Amino acid sequence: MQYETRSRSILKAVSWRTLATITTAVIVFVFTGKVALALTIGFLEVFAKMGLYFVHERVWQKLHFGKRNVPAFVVWFTGLPASGKKHLADGVFKQLKKERLKVERLDSHDIRPLFPTVGFSPEDVDRHIRRAGHLAAVLEKNGVIVIASFVSPFRKSREFARGLAGNFVEVYMKTTPEACEARDEHGHYRAARAGELTHFPGVNGPYEEPQNPQVVIDVEQTALDEAVRQVVRYLKKNILNKT
Amino acid sequence: MQYETRSRSILKAVSWRTLATITTAVIVFVFTGKVALALTIGFLEVFAKMGLYFVHERVWQKLHFGKRNVPAFVVWFTGLPASGKKHLADGVFKQLKKERLKVERLDSHDIRPLFPTVGFSPEDVDRHIRRAGHLAAVLEKNGVIVIASFVSPFRKSREFARGLAGNFVEVYMKTTPEACEARDEHGHYRAARAGELTHFPGVNGPYEEPQNPQVVIDVEQTALDEAVRQVVRYLKKNILNKT
Repeated sequence: MQYETRSRSILKAVSWRTLATITTAVIVFVFTGKVALALTIGFLEVFAKMGLYFVHERVWQKLHFGKRNVPAFVVWFTGLPASGKKHLADGVFKQLKKERLKVERLDSHDIRPLFPTVGFSPEDVDRHIRRAGHLAAVLEKNGVIVIASFVSPFRKSREFARGLAGNFVEVYMKTTPEACEARDEHGHYRAARAGELTHFPGVNGPYEEPQNPQVVIDVEQTALDEAVRQVVRYLKKNILNKT
Repeated sequence: MQYETRSRSILKAVSWRTLATITTAVIVFVFTGKVALALTIGFLEVFAKMGLYFVHERVWQKLHFGKRNVPAFVVWFTGLPASGKKHLADGVFKQLKKERLKVERLDSHDIRPLFPTVGFSPEDVDRHIRRAGHLAAVLEKNGVIVIASFVSPFRKSREFARGLAGNFVEVYMKTTPEACEARDEHGHYRAARAGELTHFPGVNGPYEEPQNPQVVIDVEQTALDEAVRQVVRYLKKNILNKT
């Protein structure tokens, strides 16, 4: 939470007075041609108005007019493992950070290690995603923009997350298991095909496509930079620049 | 997230100019005795400085000097069921809200219904509290003060929550199962004694007392208002008013 300190108000008063008194003295001189008068009036003004400016600042610090709140929202990236969610979400996150917005990044890879007992059964995955959705919604409610990336293969878990959030933007990474396997650096797809990983979305577990995603990224046809632009454009048009 | 709009800067410029130009005109009149000169200079000043003031405001809007961040923290109320956590936490929450701080309230009674599959086995309770601790820490990291109340009977779960948070204030409701049972409006203690509820802290399940709580409330000896004051006093002294 931010507020303005007294020293900020004092420094503003000084910087303004320097600017303003020079202007006054110049005006008085132009109209009267008297240097001494211009300087005397300027001198008096310094003392009279410096204090006045400080009081004016403190009064305005209490007023809320014109302090605009940027609306928060949740951007939820869903798609098969190795569909590129993480890279895209990171790109969007960086872009919003650059605009000095308050953003939090939630990613499966960061949260799962904190809770090692959470497994990959459909029940565990559903519960995990619901929790992440709840976390995202509470952050959003507190004015924080959330960029979340989770495979989140089940529609019902994503709809739960959507239901808790105020403004939920679902981004679907549209691709195929084959294309993802070719990209997969960790060998997860191969392991799943060999039966070493179970419940693996796209191989031996389901991935339920979103029915009404707000943004669809055609993964094979879209360069990363262009995908970032697509998502940011959607957010600006529909949320950030909407009044 | 908040920022200042252009219209706020415009209105501030107008309100300041009114105040300031009257002062200038009075000074000029006092020194020259000429009403016309005082008004002319005042008139010119209005135009020259109104624009200047607006520009000055916009430049300061970019500067971060003197915009002080209030530190966030997590206040974690722990204690037996019916020890009075919820009432005390609500009281502290209201007090901080009154001071216009950004505060979020997390309570077991609000979160559990969202996740009906979470049970009361030691494993489930531990997992639940770790999740709540994670939620609290992420909020804190984003500048939100968190007021959390959970029985949280296990030391290891509370220490997990403490480890994730930056500034963790543990408030221990010191009382006895007997006193809690006398206060218990829901008949949970009776049900636990009858064996209808299992793993019930203080009856047929453990409650591990905090070893180094930041605040200890002697529940039977302390009125609610006084308990709220004790917690708020601790927060002001150790966090809020500390620079």
